[in-house]
Amino acid sequence: MHIAMVVYDRFTALDAVGPYEILSRLPDARVDFVAERPGPVRTDTGFLAVTADKALDEVTSPDIVVVAGGPGTAEQLENPALLDWLRAVDARTTWTTSVCSGSLLLAAAGLLKGRRATSHWAALEVLKQFGAEPTGERVVTDGKYVTAAGVSSGIDMGLTLVGRIAGDEHAQAVQLLTEYDPQPPYDAGSPQKAPAHLVEEFRAQSRLTLR
Amino acid sequence: MHIAMVVYDRFTALDAVGPYEILSRLPDARVDFVAERPGPVRTDTGFLAVTADKALDEVTSPDIVVVAGGPGTAEQLENPALLDWLRAVDARTTWTTSVCSGSLLLAAAGLLKGRRATSHWAALEVLKQFGAEPTGERVVTDGKYVTAAGVSSGIDMGLTLVGRIAGDEHAQAVQLLTEYDPQPPYDAGSPQKAPAHLVEEFRAQSRLTLR
Repeated sequence: MHIAMVVYDRFTALDAVGPYEILSRLPDARVDFVAERPGPVRTDTGFLAVTADKALDEVTSPDIVVVAGGPGTAEQLENPALLDWLRAVDARTTWTTSVCSGSLLLAAAGLLKGRRATSHWAALEVLKQFGAEPTGERVVTDGKYVTAAGVSSGIDMGLTLVGRIAGDEHAQAVQLLTEYDPQPPYDAGSPQKAPAHLVEEFRAQSRLTLR
Repeated sequence: MHIAMVVYDRFTALDAVGPYEILSRLPDARVDFVAERPGPVRTDTGFLAVTADKALDEVTSPDIVVVAGGPGTAEQLENPALLDWLRAVDARTTWTTSVCSGSLLLAAAGLLKGRRATSHWAALEVLKQFGAEPTGERVVTDGKYVTAAGVSSGIDMGLTLVGRIAGDEHAQAVQLLTEYDPQPPYDAGSPQKAPAHLVEEFRAQSRLTLR
């Protein structure tokens, strides 16, 4: 099972590392972090770089593609090299997936037209403009396309996929290994649950940074 | 607020990236990934490397130290350079913290003697041998020492710390930004909840790999 984790300048680290940590525990998993050019790729905060071991053109037929999101997504929406690659590998994948605003890249590549999908809650409207049908669920499966909501949701997506691919028991073993028994000290993880003024402040900020 | 994320060969990526993603959203945060030698550091699966921008001896007075865990911990327990550094910086930190088996390194450095602490569920017995008092909680605070359970628990620890440092509202804003509204598709994230035979299999395997 060959998994390609797609990253680019100013992606959000947890978008990629959450599902990587889970999917890399699939039986016979082989994971490549892939970017347009191999080498260190800086995340959105500037404080962390992960190594892309492979260039896009070195990875031609992954079984699973996972596209991370982040503030850098906006720039990649205009990057034909990445969008062409997504279309090309999608023709051969078993699963084409995304976390957070990564779904905007799948949609911009034309892969989510008319499909149920999700994204970071603040990006759902943009996802719709690209012809997808946004839902409010945390992990959305439509055929072989699996999209997850913001940042941390890639962990839930990873476990969902491991269950589909390797069975419930293997997924439970991975959940146990990663001690994924979440106990957030607050209950503000969605726009429905967070204080309304925090939701408004975030929307105002992301309008400034994403457009 | 200067945060040092301590990594080493064969650490577990999510141990570090979970709390990094949360703590890097503190007001005026500055984060350094730190290792004995700067450069790419391979994680436990071999599939991912993160860049340590700083060597241990370049980071002398961080406000927060976060020590990641992973299979590589066993080797670091015998690494005086790391243990000496932990003792030295601990004299000046506001918070000294760990995720997963990272707490064994704090304990081996003598920092958790007689303190309530936690670790990956499979490492609690070893933590006790180092003189700490293991608890079954997911995030344990004893004075300025904050230890988290296995792998994914560093996200909960991060939010707990952000709340203590910057207030509940800032922590809720970070939870909303990272859409941390976990919905695991299974409920097997602790040895109490997982099927008993999976717990036994994991214990048997980790005895092989950790000793």
